[in-house]
Amino acid sequence: MSAKKQSSPVTNSAADSANAMWGGRFAAGPAAIMQQINASIGVDKRLYAEDIQGSLAHAAMLAKQGIVTETDAAAIAKGLNQVKAEIEAGHFEFKVALEDIHMNVEQRLKELIGEPAGRLHTARSRNDQVATDFKLWVRRACDEVAAETRNLVAALIDRAEEEAATVMPGYTHLQPAQPVTFGHHLLAYVEMLGRDLGRLADARKRLNESPLGAAALAGTTFPIDRQMTAKALGFDRPTANSLDSVSDRDFALEYLSALSILAVHLSRLAEEIVIWMSEGFRFVTLSDAFTTGSSIMPQKKNPDAAELVRAKAGEVIGLTVQLLIILKGLPLTYGKDMQDDKAPTFAATDTVLLSLAAMAGMIRDLTPNRARMREACERGFLTATDLADWLVKHLGLPFRDAHHVTGTLVKMAEDKGKGLSDLSLAEMQSVEPRIGDSVYPVLKVENSVAGRKSEGGTAPDNVRAAAKAARERLL
Amino acid sequence: MSAKKQSSPVTNSAADSANAMWGGRFAAGPAAIMQQINASIGVDKRLYAEDIQGSLAHAAMLAKQGIVTETDAAAIAKGLNQVKAEIEAGHFEFKVALEDIHMNVEQRLKELIGEPAGRLHTARSRNDQVATDFKLWVRRACDEVAAETRNLVAALIDRAEEEAATVMPGYTHLQPAQPVTFGHHLLAYVEMLGRDLGRLADARKRLNESPLGAAALAGTTFPIDRQMTAKALGFDRPTANSLDSVSDRDFALEYLSALSILAVHLSRLAEEIVIWMSEGFRFVTLSDAFTTGSSIMPQKKNPDAAELVRAKAGEVIGLTVQLLIILKGLPLTYGKDMQDDKAPTFAATDTVLLSLAAMAGMIRDLTPNRARMREACERGFLTATDLADWLVKHLGLPFRDAHHVTGTLVKMAEDKGKGLSDLSLAEMQSVEPRIGDSVYPVLKVENSVAGRKSEGGTAPDNVRAAAKAARERLL
Amino acid sequence: MSAKKQSSPVTNSAADSANAMWGGRFAAGPAAIMQQINASIGVDKRLYAEDIQGSLAHAAMLAKQGIVTETDAAAIAKGLNQVKAEIEAGHFEFKVALEDIHMNVEQRLKELIGEPAGRLHTARSRNDQVATDFKLWVRRACDEVAAETRNLVAALIDRAEEEAATVMPGYTHLQPAQPVTFGHHLLAYVEMLGRDLGRLADARKRLNESPLGAAALAGTTFPIDRQMTAKALGFDRPTANSLDSVSDRDFALEYLSALSILAVHLSRLAEEIVIWMSEGFRFVTLSDAFTTGSSIMPQKKNPDAAELVRAKAGEVIGLTVQLLIILKGLPLTYGKDMQDDKAPTFAATDTVLLSLAAMAGMIRDLTPNRARMREACERGFLTATDLADWLVKHLGLPFRDAHHVTGTLVKMAEDKGKGLSDLSLAEMQSVEPRIGDSVYPVLKVENSVAGRKSEGGTAPDNVRAAAKAARERLL
Amino acid sequence: MSAKKQSSPVTNSAADSANAMWGGRFAAGPAAIMQQINASIGVDKRLYAEDIQGSLAHAAMLAKQGIVTETDAAAIAKGLNQVKAEIEAGHFEFKVALEDIHMNVEQRLKELIGEPAGRLHTARSRNDQVATDFKLWVRRACDEVAAETRNLVAALIDRAEEEAATVMPGYTHLQPAQPVTFGHHLLAYVEMLGRDLGRLADARKRLNESPLGAAALAGTTFPIDRQMTAKALGFDRPTANSLDSVSDRDFALEYLSALSILAVHLSRLAEEIVIWMSEGFRFVTLSDAFTTGSSIMPQKKNPDAAELVRAKAGEVIGLTVQLLIILKGLPLTYGKDMQDDKAPTFAATDTVLLSLAAMAGMIRDLTPNRARMREACERGFLTATDLADWLVKHLGLPFRDAHHVTGTLVKMAEDKGKGLSDLSLAEMQSVEPRIGDSVYPVLKVENSVAGRKSEGGTAPDNVRAAAKAARERLL
Repeated sequence: MSAKKQSSPVTNSAADSANAMWGGRFAAGPAAIMQQINASIGVDKRLYAEDIQGSLAHAAMLAKQGIVTETDAAAIAKGLNQVKAEIEAGHFEFKVALEDIHMNVEQRLKELIGEPAGRLHTARSRNDQVATDFKLWVRRACDEVAAETRNLVAALIDRAEEEAATVMPGYTHLQPAQPVTFGHHLLAYVEMLGRDLGRLADARKRLNESPLGAAALAGTTFPIDRQMTAKALGFDRPTANSLDSVSDRDFALEYLSALSILAVHLSRLAEEIVIWMSEGFRFVTLSDAFTTGSSIMPQKKNPDAAELVRAKAGEVIGLTVQLLIILKGLPLTYGKDMQDDKAPTFAATDTVLLSLAAMAGMIRDLTPNRARMREACERGFLTATDLADWLVKHLGLPFRDAHHVTGTLVKMAEDKGKGLSDLSLAEMQSVEPRIGDSVYPVLKVENSVAGRKSEGGTAPDNVRAAAKAARERLL
Repeated sequence: MSAKKQSSPVTNSAADSANAMWGGRFAAGPAAIMQQINASIGVDKRLYAEDIQGSLAHAAMLAKQGIVTETDAAAIAKGLNQVKAEIEAGHFEFKVALEDIHMNVEQRLKELIGEPAGRLHTARSRNDQVATDFKLWVRRACDEVAAETRNLVAALIDRAEEEAATVMPGYTHLQPAQPVTFGHHLLAYVEMLGRDLGRLADARKRLNESPLGAAALAGTTFPIDRQMTAKALGFDRPTANSLDSVSDRDFALEYLSALSILAVHLSRLAEEIVIWMSEGFRFVTLSDAFTTGSSIMPQKKNPDAAELVRAKAGEVIGLTVQLLIILKGLPLTYGKDMQDDKAPTFAATDTVLLSLAAMAGMIRDLTPNRARMREACERGFLTATDLADWLVKHLGLPFRDAHHVTGTLVKMAEDKGKGLSDLSLAEMQSVEPRIGDSVYPVLKVENSVAGRKSEGGTAPDNVRAAAKAARERLL
Repeated sequence: MSAKKQSSPVTNSAADSANAMWGGRFAAGPAAIMQQINASIGVDKRLYAEDIQGSLAHAAMLAKQGIVTETDAAAIAKGLNQVKAEIEAGHFEFKVALEDIHMNVEQRLKELIGEPAGRLHTARSRNDQVATDFKLWVRRACDEVAAETRNLVAALIDRAEEEAATVMPGYTHLQPAQPVTFGHHLLAYVEMLGRDLGRLADARKRLNESPLGAAALAGTTFPIDRQMTAKALGFDRPTANSLDSVSDRDFALEYLSALSILAVHLSRLAEEIVIWMSEGFRFVTLSDAFTTGSSIMPQKKNPDAAELVRAKAGEVIGLTVQLLIILKGLPLTYGKDMQDDKAPTFAATDTVLLSLAAMAGMIRDLTPNRARMREACERGFLTATDLADWLVKHLGLPFRDAHHVTGTLVKMAEDKGKGLSDLSLAEMQSVEPRIGDSVYPVLKVENSVAGRKSEGGTAPDNVRAAAKAARERLL
Repeated sequence: MSAKKQSSPVTNSAADSANAMWGGRFAAGPAAIMQQINASIGVDKRLYAEDIQGSLAHAAMLAKQGIVTETDAAAIAKGLNQVKAEIEAGHFEFKVALEDIHMNVEQRLKELIGEPAGRLHTARSRNDQVATDFKLWVRRACDEVAAETRNLVAALIDRAEEEAATVMPGYTHLQPAQPVTFGHHLLAYVEMLGRDLGRLADARKRLNESPLGAAALAGTTFPIDRQMTAKALGFDRPTANSLDSVSDRDFALEYLSALSILAVHLSRLAEEIVIWMSEGFRFVTLSDAFTTGSSIMPQKKNPDAAELVRAKAGEVIGLTVQLLIILKGLPLTYGKDMQDDKAPTFAATDTVLLSLAAMAGMIRDLTPNRARMREACERGFLTATDLADWLVKHLGLPFRDAHHVTGTLVKMAEDKGKGLSDLSLAEMQSVEPRIGDSVYPVLKVENSVAGRKSEGGTAPDNVRAAAKAARERLL
């Protein structure tokens, strides 16, 4: 990475001390400003493969329909494949003067094959071309985000199976409430990610209509075959309305919305890791691979990766908002505002893929501190609900009355500095005379979790079955 | 509406002139502040029907499972139905001191039936109860928004059929580009709304799992039957993980995200109406029903309803952002932050339903000014693309060369203050000698649109077929 | 609160079971929809005092300039004061049919004084009227939010003085880093709130230009005196451009932006309270006034108020985004979109005032657990930095080398299960032979904080001085 | 620009066809993921000058206070200046392994001067260092954005003076309302930008406190002189609280909020340019420097630059939201989340500077079509308000009655297809018998604008005076 590439508008050179940088940069006049704001090649070159893929399909269709000759189509195909090879080999020169990926590819094609290059654009416009390219990209991004999500799901399920019987406090309001198992807790995130996969799949399915052939905005008078190009590009069908085809960016909005929700899920797990790593909790440890330390305090393990994943949700939400704002109130059909659809979509994709990878890494890396988790269960009277349930089931108390009795007993235990199970039968009977010996087993944390066998409950057997089911359903 | 109800923190009464209002309000101490920030009954009373519906299902299940007696269950059911009747008759008194809808209903039930009311809460917690209520509400909101969306789709299709052959300029960059038909333009919005319906349907399907029975967070030791309550409440199945069940608000996030995209669609159409109503365009007229005037300038028709629909997208996006932020970084399971999930969801629903109704009203109300639209097509050399296509098809020019010839002819026409079809054959041949008489028909606006018969194109026959297909697909 | 008032679009009455509610509501036709979307009286009645204040100033100026007679002006003033009295007495009937507060007041004035009421609107328009009203409201809101912010600042300073010497761990990454005092920590929030006060003051100062007299948008041909009305309303001067005067909502945007930052500050403190209340930390206790409990677990203290304050930041940010979006891309001058400026501004004000009051209440209410805080300092090798500093100062080691020696010693202590000060001199010298007895005092937590006397540092004396200075600067 | 640099996570190479890219990238294990998410050098290298500036000030202070020797300080200063020279000459190699700009500079310093480099970090931490660097950067960004804003203000004032008497319709709801001058319209934006300058100046002033010396979070035991470093770096004073110093990012939030409002202003002007360029308006023409054309339709001038400036407001708002979200609910002091403060701040700065430059370019470039503007005034009965004012002033009608008479006359003129001034005196008197000949001059557009001499009104003389005043006040 060289400092020369720095494009900072707020530079520090001596030359800039007297006047603002942009004044300097744009002293050359409007052309420089316009090129700076108008050219998109720095961003949209990431669409090169989709652009060439779309052009190949279009050219083949033009030939089949007799709109261009087979000879021309063959030359176009050969040329396009060469352009692609040049880009992937890294010796294609992207030119800002040619503004975008479409013109960069087309211009190089013309250099390579001459006149037939001019025929490729028949019955097509940059408007349907860019919509097609971008849709193909987002479709693939759906697949890649889904794949990386599944990697994280796999990590969570693996760890959930290992920790199916590891007891820990379940929290509400960050206050200990009832014992659960760590495996059960991890599977909660599998449910969230499962819904994320569903949203990505639905978004992918909904976007899968080909805009190619909508031309500038009104369709074309050429006898094109949109079914053919749609099929060649893996679309389910052509779009139904040409104006909509070139104005629509729903597919990016829906994809970004799905990523926002996914990023929020990751931020919740990240927050938990930060809390679990804190000195007050120490429920898990992350290795040096995912923490940073202090040269001065070797015991310090800063959960940097978790904090960064937490922060990334802010970025993804911000990028989603950006595109919603850009499209709000935009008249049909294409407006140049829409050129700014790709940067937030690319950025959100990069960020979410990275966050998913980092989170999968942390989940596989973390070491649960089972003793600390168990110990924390003891401190919080976590089996109070079990006691109340016992009073309902065995003594027939209405639930609200059972609550009252339990509350009195917890208060008594707290005042005496004891756990619930440390109260003597006499002490208990002073509150509710019908309580008998059979109450003690329900006050044990392990029995508490083992007893919660209701569907979706935290009993270790449930957790193991749920892990298995999730594996089958999602992986 | 009485001024007495005013809850403004910035009031104007003489009593407040000396000191800030909240200081005054909270002089009574912490209790007043806590009640103000903590009580949700002002918002969540809208859940009353869902709350009672959920409790009825839960009570029936408890009886069937032998957890409560049939007698108690019958008393509970009768009591709950009476509470519902009281609320719907408008003589139920909601009490802020009881905080939320759940406690308001339960307390009244206790007054009505006494002790058995206390058994209703067996094997249930407020955590799974509120998740169930809110999901039922969002599910119904999906249906109502979908119904109102279909009303707008129906209006658009009706008008599209009427205007299937009405020519108007198609725009890119708000610059005239090619002729299209007004019907075709309206159907572009049908496509958008069709995708909105798809998103709502997917959201509805994905949320349709019952959280009831997750209890506080860990499941329960009572032998409940979650399949039974799920079925009774119209859910497809119970949720799979109890922790997720009480922490999950994906259903609201996904629903709000879908509303944001829908609101953006409405804002685009609203912007077009504002532009079409402007003096420079005058493409459509709205009646007094959807405009406001000026007592001084009777010719003035302010498109207030359209402007307000445009603004509402800002609100819906803001509300979506609000809930995303609230949930970001929240550890499991329930946190009180989540109480603020309902206000934005209710507000966005109200706003979108109102926007849809207003837009459907405007679409049915508007009178297109066909003459103005036709005339605008003449001013913009809109058939230049048709001329270029003709040069490709009939003279075999590569598309890029055809563009060049067309450009020269348009420039010539513009310099002479003529339309393209007003150029003589000699004038045309001075640029491209092979041009013949058969070029003139393609320069006519009506022929231009009629010729764009490619799938999804703007030809009136296409538009009529597309309207019919959309009607079958969406209504 | 009566169920009858419910305006839920998603209602539950039997009548609605067959068809969507809005369909029902709007069956009466466009008028109902338009009234629903267009009328703002439900929101803008909160401007009644500002509206009357502005009209009184305008009428007095018209009379002084001879544009209306003194008699008419007197009748107008008397009438307006009566309207105000009626509203404040609670027996003014706000009419939705009159749309907004301006027409409601004007209509009632006409009933009261007849013909002269019609002269009040001379040389004024609803456009400059509403801008004036809303500015006056926001100006007052700045003052009220500032007053409530000062209340919280006072609470923080009071507690900071009490806890100036209470040691607690200072955190980075939620990991213990160095000892600080609780008072110092509280004063960090005083700094944030001090900047918030600065932003509110700047916003207030910047907005303080009178739009009254800009008329509809172009100024007026009447010989009005804008200096006079500006002065009467407490503005510094009239606005400079009539078009800007009626289009500008910067004052609301800047105010909302300041509230967003303020709300973020409160959310950070709220998060800390949640963490400090958690079982793993137990640094502070809140009384029942600001927590909710569980009938079954009396030891449970849910920090509901803190969680709600944390959530409110999401709302305030969402409302700010809403208004930014509404104004983005809006052509001059007034558009009806701008009617939606008031609802988010009012809502954000209410929410921030409530959050400030709740936070001030919590700060005054909380009981710090000094023993727990002190104890937590022991567990984290928090004086490692002090040791490193000692090595630099007394042995002349470069800072990076001192870090290395310290790290080795901490590791040694950790491995032996000791604190740093429990290492023997021999143990220390095995790492760095020049270490002498004088190192031990710096390893004591109290000495550590006492030694950080650099400007702004955490030494108790610094904290006391800082509290005093803040009190003088901000209260 | 070479394809080799492509960092797309969604790449297209053959190698990636079988498996997701990130899987591939991270096959090497956690280290690669952690480096990717943790290293900030790609972003924060833009801080190099500020980092060196801060270190120079710190070193000088350490020497003056006797904490390091003068010799060491001199070596450090010489080394730092060499590092800076290397970076600016473009042959400094930024290393990702060294994570951030601070470590990159420090490491190179160590290579250059050896052991004394290790003393630079005495009494300083990366926490106060990065806060100082970033504040210095934002301070300079305030200045540069202000300078570029003044460039635009200058362009607007220049054009406003040229067009001080150019009449055009003033709009509300995009409907013609009253005549104004184009110069007056342009000056409305000068007012907005004037407030933007005020906000930038206030933000700059508020941030101008030096965090240097806060050390890690608690201050230091070294006898540092924070006043000295504050002064050397141009700060007004040191910050008052060390914890706040390293946790505070208000300066970025306030700066971003100011940019959001500024970007909204630019988006409004951009929207107007798009509308003014439309075929229905044709009020202004932009040259090819700021438009793109169509090879096929040479008359087409797409206002791309204006559309892009409009879109950029979405980006700036999104970036502001991003940072607000990141900071919401973050406990003190430094968390790694805060590393993501710089990317949105840098991006928003670049975008706003570019938008300002593009807008200044467009304002200087545009050619107003005075004839079209004048003509549009005739079509809208724009002097109806003038007529009503005349009725009030000369016939003593109450304003509301004057409105009614005017409305009737406008209706009459419209029905007869005439302008207001084309009505005969007899026709006018049929509505209001007291109307006399002296009414006709007020119906002339030029007289209308000339008559609006109220302070801030649109009269050409007012506009010229306002332009002069704005020039003195803002430039």
